[in-house]
Amino acid sequence: MSEDIAAQYRIEAEPYYRAVGSEVELFRAAHARRMPVMLKGPTGCGKTRFVEHMAYTLGRPLITVACNEDMTASDLVGRYLLDREGTKWHDGPLTVAARIGAICYLDEVVEARQDTVVVIHPLTDHRRVLPLDKKGELLHAHDDFQLVISYNPGYQSLMKDLKQSTKQRFGALSFDYPDAGVEAEIIARETGCDLKVAEKLVQIAHRARNLRGHGLDEGISTRLLVYAGQMIAEGIDPAHACQMTLVTPLTDDPDMRETLEAAVATFFTS
Amino acid sequence: MSEDIAAQYRIEAEPYYRAVGSEVELFRAAHARRMPVMLKGPTGCGKTRFVEHMAYTLGRPLITVACNEDMTASDLVGRYLLDREGTKWHDGPLTVAARIGAICYLDEVVEARQDTVVVIHPLTDHRRVLPLDKKGELLHAHDDFQLVISYNPGYQSLMKDLKQSTKQRFGALSFDYPDAGVEAEIIARETGCDLKVAEKLVQIAHRARNLRGHGLDEGISTRLLVYAGQMIAEGIDPAHACQMTLVTPLTDDPDMRETLEAAVATFFTS
Amino acid sequence: MSEDIAAQYRIEAEPYYRAVGSEVELFRAAHARRMPVMLKGPTGCGKTRFVEHMAYTLGRPLITVACNEDMTASDLVGRYLLDREGTKWHDGPLTVAARIGAICYLDEVVEARQDTVVVIHPLTDHRRVLPLDKKGELLHAHDDFQLVISYNPGYQSLMKDLKQSTKQRFGALSFDYPDAGVEAEIIARETGCDLKVAEKLVQIAHRARNLRGHGLDEGISTRLLVYAGQMIAEGIDPAHACQMTLVTPLTDDPDMRETLEAAVATFFTS
Amino acid sequence: MSEDIAAQYRIEAEPYYRAVGSEVELFRAAHARRMPVMLKGPTGCGKTRFVEHMAYTLGRPLITVACNEDMTASDLVGRYLLDREGTKWHDGPLTVAARIGAICYLDEVVEARQDTVVVIHPLTDHRRVLPLDKKGELLHAHDDFQLVISYNPGYQSLMKDLKQSTKQRFGALSFDYPDAGVEAEIIARETGCDLKVAEKLVQIAHRARNLRGHGLDEGISTRLLVYAGQMIAEGIDPAHACQMTLVTPLTDDPDMRETLEAAVATFFTS
Amino acid sequence: MSEDIAAQYRIEAEPYYRAVGSEVELFRAAHARRMPVMLKGPTGCGKTRFVEHMAYTLGRPLITVACNEDMTASDLVGRYLLDREGTKWHDGPLTVAARIGAICYLDEVVEARQDTVVVIHPLTDHRRVLPLDKKGELLHAHDDFQLVISYNPGYQSLMKDLKQSTKQRFGALSFDYPDAGVEAEIIARETGCDLKVAEKLVQIAHRARNLRGHGLDEGISTRLLVYAGQMIAEGIDPAHACQMTLVTPLTDDPDMRETLEAAVATFFTS
Amino acid sequence: MSEDIAAQYRIEAEPYYRAVGSEVELFRAAHARRMPVMLKGPTGCGKTRFVEHMAYTLGRPLITVACNEDMTASDLVGRYLLDREGTKWHDGPLTVAARIGAICYLDEVVEARQDTVVVIHPLTDHRRVLPLDKKGELLHAHDDFQLVISYNPGYQSLMKDLKQSTKQRFGALSFDYPDAGVEAEIIARETGCDLKVAEKLVQIAHRARNLRGHGLDEGISTRLLVYAGQMIAEGIDPAHACQMTLVTPLTDDPDMRETLEAAVATFFTS
Repeated sequence: MSEDIAAQYRIEAEPYYRAVGSEVELFRAAHARRMPVMLKGPTGCGKTRFVEHMAYTLGRPLITVACNEDMTASDLVGRYLLDREGTKWHDGPLTVAARIGAICYLDEVVEARQDTVVVIHPLTDHRRVLPLDKKGELLHAHDDFQLVISYNPGYQSLMKDLKQSTKQRFGALSFDYPDAGVEAEIIARETGCDLKVAEKLVQIAHRARNLRGHGLDEGISTRLLVYAGQMIAEGIDPAHACQMTLVTPLTDDPDMRETLEAAVATFFTS
Repeated sequence: MSEDIAAQYRIEAEPYYRAVGSEVELFRAAHARRMPVMLKGPTGCGKTRFVEHMAYTLGRPLITVACNEDMTASDLVGRYLLDREGTKWHDGPLTVAARIGAICYLDEVVEARQDTVVVIHPLTDHRRVLPLDKKGELLHAHDDFQLVISYNPGYQSLMKDLKQSTKQRFGALSFDYPDAGVEAEIIARETGCDLKVAEKLVQIAHRARNLRGHGLDEGISTRLLVYAGQMIAEGIDPAHACQMTLVTPLTDDPDMRETLEAAVATFFTS
Repeated sequence: MSEDIAAQYRIEAEPYYRAVGSEVELFRAAHARRMPVMLKGPTGCGKTRFVEHMAYTLGRPLITVACNEDMTASDLVGRYLLDREGTKWHDGPLTVAARIGAICYLDEVVEARQDTVVVIHPLTDHRRVLPLDKKGELLHAHDDFQLVISYNPGYQSLMKDLKQSTKQRFGALSFDYPDAGVEAEIIARETGCDLKVAEKLVQIAHRARNLRGHGLDEGISTRLLVYAGQMIAEGIDPAHACQMTLVTPLTDDPDMRETLEAAVATFFTS
Repeated sequence: MSEDIAAQYRIEAEPYYRAVGSEVELFRAAHARRMPVMLKGPTGCGKTRFVEHMAYTLGRPLITVACNEDMTASDLVGRYLLDREGTKWHDGPLTVAARIGAICYLDEVVEARQDTVVVIHPLTDHRRVLPLDKKGELLHAHDDFQLVISYNPGYQSLMKDLKQSTKQRFGALSFDYPDAGVEAEIIARETGCDLKVAEKLVQIAHRARNLRGHGLDEGISTRLLVYAGQMIAEGIDPAHACQMTLVTPLTDDPDMRETLEAAVATFFTS
Repeated sequence: MSEDIAAQYRIEAEPYYRAVGSEVELFRAAHARRMPVMLKGPTGCGKTRFVEHMAYTLGRPLITVACNEDMTASDLVGRYLLDREGTKWHDGPLTVAARIGAICYLDEVVEARQDTVVVIHPLTDHRRVLPLDKKGELLHAHDDFQLVISYNPGYQSLMKDLKQSTKQRFGALSFDYPDAGVEAEIIARETGCDLKVAEKLVQIAHRARNLRGHGLDEGISTRLLVYAGQMIAEGIDPAHACQMTLVTPLTDDPDMRETLEAAVATFFTS
Repeated sequence: MSEDIAAQYRIEAEPYYRAVGSEVELFRAAHARRMPVMLKGPTGCGKTRFVEHMAYTLGRPLITVACNEDMTASDLVGRYLLDREGTKWHDGPLTVAARIGAICYLDEVVEARQDTVVVIHPLTDHRRVLPLDKKGELLHAHDDFQLVISYNPGYQSLMKDLKQSTKQRFGALSFDYPDAGVEAEIIARETGCDLKVAEKLVQIAHRARNLRGHGLDEGISTRLLVYAGQMIAEGIDPAHACQMTLVTPLTDDPDMRETLEAAVATFFTS
């Protein structure tokens, strides 16, 4: 039966991923030792897709959990639910992953309450167990189970950061936006827009990314460039498309907005 | 059965909407790619009506959720409820929309807890899935599903703002109050008051809108102008009607109130 | 059946209300258009009684909700309750009012959490709907439904104020204490005390009301004057009666207390 | 049946109460008009006993509720409880009092969350109703119902104070410690100690009460003097008895403690 | 049946307690009047054992409750629990004690939320009742019931202190560590270590206790000295034993640690 | 049956532990007296493994609880759960340990709410009882029961520290990273990497540990060194392996990152 469950979480088609450095090789070695891995990097640079790619090529089921501040330990581990015959235990996603030997991916883990995160500790040292205290079961993780978390250092603050005792349980891979050529290639491939147009979009993004920390919290992500390319491929005027996808979503500050509009106008005039 | 549910959310009569710029064309292109869209703009300028108009012309069911700080992820996604035979899963509005291929409109999303908002992330990237963790189901969104959110930048503060990792998942359209001529036409049409009267009301509004940031948090919205027009059409003295709908609701500051009353007195004397 | 429910909320006897300005006429016109109305004014000046009066003369049932900070959206809208056959939906007071076409009066709405207030938004624009998200029903309000809220600007602060996006959904009427002659007449009529005595009580109140913002948060309300009149009508010495009803409840500040006692002593000696 | 319930709350024996001023007469007049009454005064000066005395002499049942910060509106009003046949409504103490015509005494009401207090508003104006929103019942109070609250101004602060809109619903009676002769008489009567000893205890108390606001938050209450008298009547050395009942409970500040010990030593040497 | 319950709470063997002053005599007199008693003193000086001793010698059952911030009034008073036949009331420990006439000992009461503490008020004045609001029962305490609380003034702060209206309901006894000779005797008796060794341990403690308020929050308690004696009696080198029981638990400050280590080294060299 | 439960918590294979000082001897003596023990030390230095080692060699079952801020007293002690026949009590892990005579290890206890920690107090003095207030049972601990807690002084702050009244219930053992030779030996043994490589890794760690308090919250733990050794043993280039396991997880500060990279480059060049 656990095979049935595992099937549900298998990635069926190979997700497109273009490697930037040695991240594939490093992840593969970490997986061989079932080492917990932390993926660091800015919004929309491809962390989620990387995990999907690795799960696919390693042939492992993947269980993804979008973390949030309201998430309790029970949301990860499981809880008793009432049914016709009284209460019945239902495994949470982390427990399912530990049982079936999946890769469990906790996305944006820094959003979760630090102390909820503590429940992953016994899974990330030599014990590899998950105590289901409420059920009175000590679950030994499946041999193939691996834990992966993501983390955006840009949000890191005194208020919200992982504790050292959590961080030191993970090997870590840094991600960033791809090089200009690679990024343009990705955009053209994913949207059907012209490569020339894609290259201009990437140049606009580079200007915005230089503003990170100088008025912008984050630069323009690859995802937004893909949105711009999609609008253009739908026949929308490029300047309008950029306004909608690269300028308006990013900021409400009039000065920054003007700076971004000027960057767009350098490449596309409406 | 999902067709039955969809029917319930279809807009039956065409909502009156007067386009201001290229917003209809841009939304239509974004919808073609099922791109998530964010509508930005001040209170009462017509964002909600625009979504209704687009849902009608695109022939899609529309599910609207008024966001608020108490809204939990379960309110959006669904929960188990107890009935005669134990607990039974009930889809939340976001889940219903993803199943039946509706446009899901999260109104005033900035009110929701930022971290609750995280549940929409997997629906707004290439995955287009909604993990129903508590049910153990990974819902793949219907091909026609699209997510739309609204957002009033005037409320934006350090305390309450969308995270970049959320913002960068949306194309964005800016809305503002319509031009004077258009706005007067709207008011006359919706209230049955005289066009001349409507034009005066719009001029009062323009004075108030110039006070935004100089003692008023927001200017007089189109909605309040419609209220004024309705009172006048009911036979109420215009100066009294303006006092009730354009002055008293807006501010308790004696100076601002006097300024607004002076603006009214310029056009209507009682 | 909804007629049975409506009957329960009808005002049976005409509540005594003495109009001060054109508020009756304005409310009647607003009601004709089912415009949401906000009543502003200090403690105990007659806002609640005004709504009762209008509901009676308009022949509408009235559902009053005393708002408080603990009130959740579910308290207004409804919730599932467990009974013999599982969970069963119970409409909240706002939902009942929208179904039967009552006037729904949210008293001291500024006490409610701002974001709970958001649930009234779809009822206060052209949609006139109330989404019962948890029940999966989109309730279209009865043609006669009208929403009225009260609001004391004296409490207004940065912490607790209605949002502009809420305020701009209401026409607003300002209330204040009645003129001296009218107020004395009200007191005499309601308590059975002598009109001369009532006039003295009003004069004491006027002195206290001048202290508003100069050591007193609020002046002496009409309600407290009625209490004073009642005690005197019961045969209590006027100076003692005033001490108990006009001085002691109002303040614990020794200086303010002395000032108020001096004001009493000017009119009544014990 | 409501008579059975009422019987349970009747005071059987006349509680000893020694009037200080005209408070009995004033309360009796207020009760005749069912005016809500607020009792103000320091800790342990006899407010609770006064209400018991009045309930006894007026022949009314008395329901006392010790307010606290965790008290929800449901704790006062009632809630649904689950039993064999589903949920069943249970009246809270305020509701019971309103049904059977009891005096409802909310002790230390300033402890309750201000906004929970809002539920008493409709019971304290001309409406005299209690909306049981969750039950869908609008309870009209029994003709004999009266609301009494107590309030210690010494705790009053910006954080915790009753709102004006609550205060102005009550007539108010101030309480303080009784005069020296009366207080000594009370102590001797209640403890069986010698009147001479009681007079000395009162003199110690007077010295401590002068320190209120000069290092002590509150003076020595009548209750503590009774404790001292009881210990002495049990044969304990007076100096030891005073140390245990008048010094150690009051303060942990070494200087204040020494001052109090000196006051004791003036009257009793060990 | 209440005798069966009482039996469960009786102290079977006489707890060892060595009186320091007149505390036994004073408690006995207070108990004769059922006066509520507060025990004040530092950590580990024997307050809990004193109550056990008194309960044993007075022949009363003892119910001890370790207070904590999460403790609700229901934890003390009782609540409805669901069983086969619906909800059934279960008395909390305070209610049990009031029914069977036990001494109820609320340990570290200052930890409990001040306002939860309010529930004990009606049990600590002439009424001696406990209103079980949720059950609708007014419980009259058993004649033998007495309330005892403990309180560590060292924790006292503006944030966490008992209210005067609570403090003034108790007679109070101060506790401190025993005299050197007595304390050494206690340690030798309880651990089986040599009296000479015990005397050295007490001398180390005295040095640490002088540091209270000068870098240490609390001195070394009698309990820690007993631990040291136990380790030594087990054959552990005294310097090592003191490091483990008198130094390492107390502080993480390197300077204080060095000072304590020097104190140990004066008496024991390793 | 309690033997069956105990069996589940027995350590089956001897955990590898290399003693650093006299900690094994001291723990053994403390266990002989069932003295509660606190283990202090930085992240990843082997506290958890030490307890497992001691439980194994003493032949005791071990119940480990990862503490977190959301943990309630009920999570430790137990609660009623609903099943077919109503509510049924389920022991929490602390209660199970006290019943079967296990060592109960509360890991990272400083994370738990201080006041939740209060529930362990009656288990850690002469009483050795655990009051199950909600069940109405006073559990006397099994003779073999011992409580062990861990605590990282590096996290100690004004906000989160154990109370003195808790600290003084424990003997305490300090842990730190092992000496260079021992640590290299551990790494080589656990990862299969070359001892020479392991020695270099330890030298990198020593440099990082000197930065503790000078830009790094914690140094590189033994656990991270093991990760580095594992990657190298998998054939990954040492410089890359160190970047992934010793640099990226530790810090996001560019300067600290550069300093750590320089330390790596001294020993491994890529």
